[in-house]
Amino acid sequence: MAADKIENPDQLVVSDDPNHPANLIPSLCAKFWTLGWVTGTGGGCSIRDDDLVYLAPSGVQKELMKPADIYVLSLAAQEPTFKQRTYIRSPPIYKPSQCTPLFLAAFTRRGAGCCIHTHSQWAVLVTLLLESQGPGNDRVFEINNIEQIKGFGKGMNKTGNLGYHDTLRIPVIENTPHEEDLTEFLEEAMEKYPDTYAVLVRRHGVYVWGDNVHKAKTQCESLDYLFQLAVEMKKLGIPWISNVTPVGPQR
Amino acid sequence: MAADKIENPDQLVVSDDPNHPANLIPSLCAKFWTLGWVTGTGGGCSIRDDDLVYLAPSGVQKELMKPADIYVLSLAAQEPTFKQRTYIRSPPIYKPSQCTPLFLAAFTRRGAGCCIHTHSQWAVLVTLLLESQGPGNDRVFEINNIEQIKGFGKGMNKTGNLGYHDTLRIPVIENTPHEEDLTEFLEEAMEKYPDTYAVLVRRHGVYVWGDNVHKAKTQCESLDYLFQLAVEMKKLGIPWISNVTPVGPQR
Amino acid sequence: MAADKIENPDQLVVSDDPNHPANLIPSLCAKFWTLGWVTGTGGGCSIRDDDLVYLAPSGVQKELMKPADIYVLSLAAQEPTFKQRTYIRSPPIYKPSQCTPLFLAAFTRRGAGCCIHTHSQWAVLVTLLLESQGPGNDRVFEINNIEQIKGFGKGMNKTGNLGYHDTLRIPVIENTPHEEDLTEFLEEAMEKYPDTYAVLVRRHGVYVWGDNVHKAKTQCESLDYLFQLAVEMKKLGIPWISNVTPVGPQR
Amino acid sequence: MAADKIENPDQLVVSDDPNHPANLIPSLCAKFWTLGWVTGTGGGCSIRDDDLVYLAPSGVQKELMKPADIYVLSLAAQEPTFKQRTYIRSPPIYKPSQCTPLFLAAFTRRGAGCCIHTHSQWAVLVTLLLESQGPGNDRVFEINNIEQIKGFGKGMNKTGNLGYHDTLRIPVIENTPHEEDLTEFLEEAMEKYPDTYAVLVRRHGVYVWGDNVHKAKTQCESLDYLFQLAVEMKKLGIPWISNVTPVGPQR
Repeated sequence: MAADKIENPDQLVVSDDPNHPANLIPSLCAKFWTLGWVTGTGGGCSIRDDDLVYLAPSGVQKELMKPADIYVLSLAAQEPTFKQRTYIRSPPIYKPSQCTPLFLAAFTRRGAGCCIHTHSQWAVLVTLLLESQGPGNDRVFEINNIEQIKGFGKGMNKTGNLGYHDTLRIPVIENTPHEEDLTEFLEEAMEKYPDTYAVLVRRHGVYVWGDNVHKAKTQCESLDYLFQLAVEMKKLGIPWISNVTPVGPQR
Repeated sequence: MAADKIENPDQLVVSDDPNHPANLIPSLCAKFWTLGWVTGTGGGCSIRDDDLVYLAPSGVQKELMKPADIYVLSLAAQEPTFKQRTYIRSPPIYKPSQCTPLFLAAFTRRGAGCCIHTHSQWAVLVTLLLESQGPGNDRVFEINNIEQIKGFGKGMNKTGNLGYHDTLRIPVIENTPHEEDLTEFLEEAMEKYPDTYAVLVRRHGVYVWGDNVHKAKTQCESLDYLFQLAVEMKKLGIPWISNVTPVGPQR
Repeated sequence: MAADKIENPDQLVVSDDPNHPANLIPSLCAKFWTLGWVTGTGGGCSIRDDDLVYLAPSGVQKELMKPADIYVLSLAAQEPTFKQRTYIRSPPIYKPSQCTPLFLAAFTRRGAGCCIHTHSQWAVLVTLLLESQGPGNDRVFEINNIEQIKGFGKGMNKTGNLGYHDTLRIPVIENTPHEEDLTEFLEEAMEKYPDTYAVLVRRHGVYVWGDNVHKAKTQCESLDYLFQLAVEMKKLGIPWISNVTPVGPQR
Repeated sequence: MAADKIENPDQLVVSDDPNHPANLIPSLCAKFWTLGWVTGTGGGCSIRDDDLVYLAPSGVQKELMKPADIYVLSLAAQEPTFKQRTYIRSPPIYKPSQCTPLFLAAFTRRGAGCCIHTHSQWAVLVTLLLESQGPGNDRVFEINNIEQIKGFGKGMNKTGNLGYHDTLRIPVIENTPHEEDLTEFLEEAMEKYPDTYAVLVRRHGVYVWGDNVHKAKTQCESLDYLFQLAVEMKKLGIPWISNVTPVGPQR
């Protein structure tokens, strides 16, 4: 639907289809709340349907969100740096999320269809563990030889998923006092790691995206699994990178 | 509603509105039970609607509470120290909660609209970790440079929330054999830390309040998140206070 | 209802009342399953209504149990050692639980109205931590100065609950290959600790009882809370017994 | 039902019975998702009804699966090595699971009625802890003297379950880049450990089976309980194998 053809913006968030973005964002966020990803109004989720972007508002309890709370904007109608945003639909009682320009970066630079931001403690702890290794070793999380790594695509415009022996690399950017100021650092990390589907934010959480909701959500789950595993490995003295001799036919 | 105009106190806890205090306290407490905050009848929650205060009774299973179980009192009708309380509505099969004077302190001294008391193990462990540092270093929990700190208001009558680089300080009071005897220590801590929205109780739990239910609940979630993170940081040898170089535009 | 007046035993497990024992055992066990207390058909729950005792069968998935699965027996009709039991109602497709004589011990020796048996990992870990302290120090779990201790009654025929400064003592018995062989050791522990409402079983779990369902369930929750806290305290180097200076008015 | 008599394969996955395999696989997988066993589309579950095998497809969100998503094949119609599989019913929008030949190995070599594959972090951590003990000590997980061990059968065609003092042994195989290449290693482990109901896969997870759904599911739960306990024991310095003096009558 072209943005300039929309007569009643409120109709954009009314649908009987549970997979409509305005229904899916609340149901996903309720699920994320039970996982501890969006505690205390933190974190969020945005879905893109062609040119239309659906966004959760700022400061809502994520497990209580309703379709009527959702913001909608046209991607084409935004200026390139996303510093100012215009909305097709703005619920009057809310403020737009500061995460918005970061979600938009995933949509425009990676063609993502969904982007999830969590405050998962496992993500935060991984960034703290990297930080404690000192400068120079704290800018990328690396893990290999864990089956769950196969839950990630090889990268934008590439076919297939990472293999068991591949090293998954997730860049870490430093946190800024204002969340929207993360945007340029997120974009830099995207450029430096063209195949990544996620960026960790130091002492803050993680942004994960995917071509569609299914891929963003399952990649986010797989990554949280790996972060939790990595923290437990550290407690047990097991390194994240290992040199495992390949077994079975190599194809 | 003025307290002296109430003809049938039982009507105070009957409403079709899920956000009415008599409905909200049971649904919140059921949620808190799943979070491990109100295990074994511990902990509780109180909501203030203007002069009327709604309270859970003592010794009920918090995930099974019903609107009919709720006590109601008039704030204006209480004597200043809250040592004796009079109730507009008292369910005959229960006893009033010993937490009552502590909830009232949050309502009168801070104008809070809701106060939550949890027995969260993370809160207890934080007070134990502080205690193990020895006298002099055990009276306040401090953490900085964690994004979730932004979940807290700057303080009563102040605008806006804490920033990422700000240090969140939560005072710790010693536990007393009788819960209501905590009241004067809680009030002392409120005076010494005029901007705090929470007070930890050694080997016991935490009291968290806010201007309304939304703020009390999300601040309580954010704080529990920080307590859990702090315990995990301690296990991994990461200090709670750090000196992080600011990144991004400073405004 | 006298056991010899029962014409149709199947009617004993049919009721519209959610608090009827035949309905309550399945709903409690489903809740316990989510807490990890009755994993893999382990653990169980029994409720006594005057002379009638309701029991879950052996080897059922606890979160899937139905009222029709429940065994019923008359306490008065059993011989004193419980080595052989006779049932008023026996679901033909099941076997009676090996926990039965242990539940009966709580009903006859303590007048309990409900007894819960969990395989909680926190209970097992506490017995392992005690065992690792060597013989002589491994027969009783002791903790004091934690608020949740107030969740326990002072003992059978005593009024009121333990205080914050009191030491909670839970005896530990050694595990036997056949669960019903635990009975005499459980009874010995009950005699040696006449005020206890629970007995730990080494490398196995815990039995907790109370005058009624409410008390058994909330004491079991409080105890599991304390076991989990105790394990975390051990990881953080904090002792279970402390010498805290009393604060507040002593009454 | 003989496979060559099936006129409409889609009818194989339509039933009002919640215990029909096409209904049970989705409801079990939804439960497993809450346990963290099938995060990010990982893991899976297969049920055999005589000659018919029901399988979850590859790459679906396990908590969202529907009966219509289920694959069906005839065991008798497969060639012996399972390298190529033919399906009676293949949902056109999915791909068959790479786990299929491993599930089939449990069905043909052990006569299992259900096989569950989890990516449980506790399973992965146990294989990592074994690996860190160095070559020669990393090929089998062993634990004894824990009550939950009684949740396992003694072995195929044997009567009864393991005892408390018995040592449970779960072999560990090395992971391969392609999941179906695990099949021959799984079969080798089955031959070397003829009584095992489970095989761990290094840095990957575990396969658990049973004569029927009840046994596979409760053995999988018991095993996950033991893996989690084992990781916690390691953190607390408690060995997995102990020499406990038997107590009670020996029968």
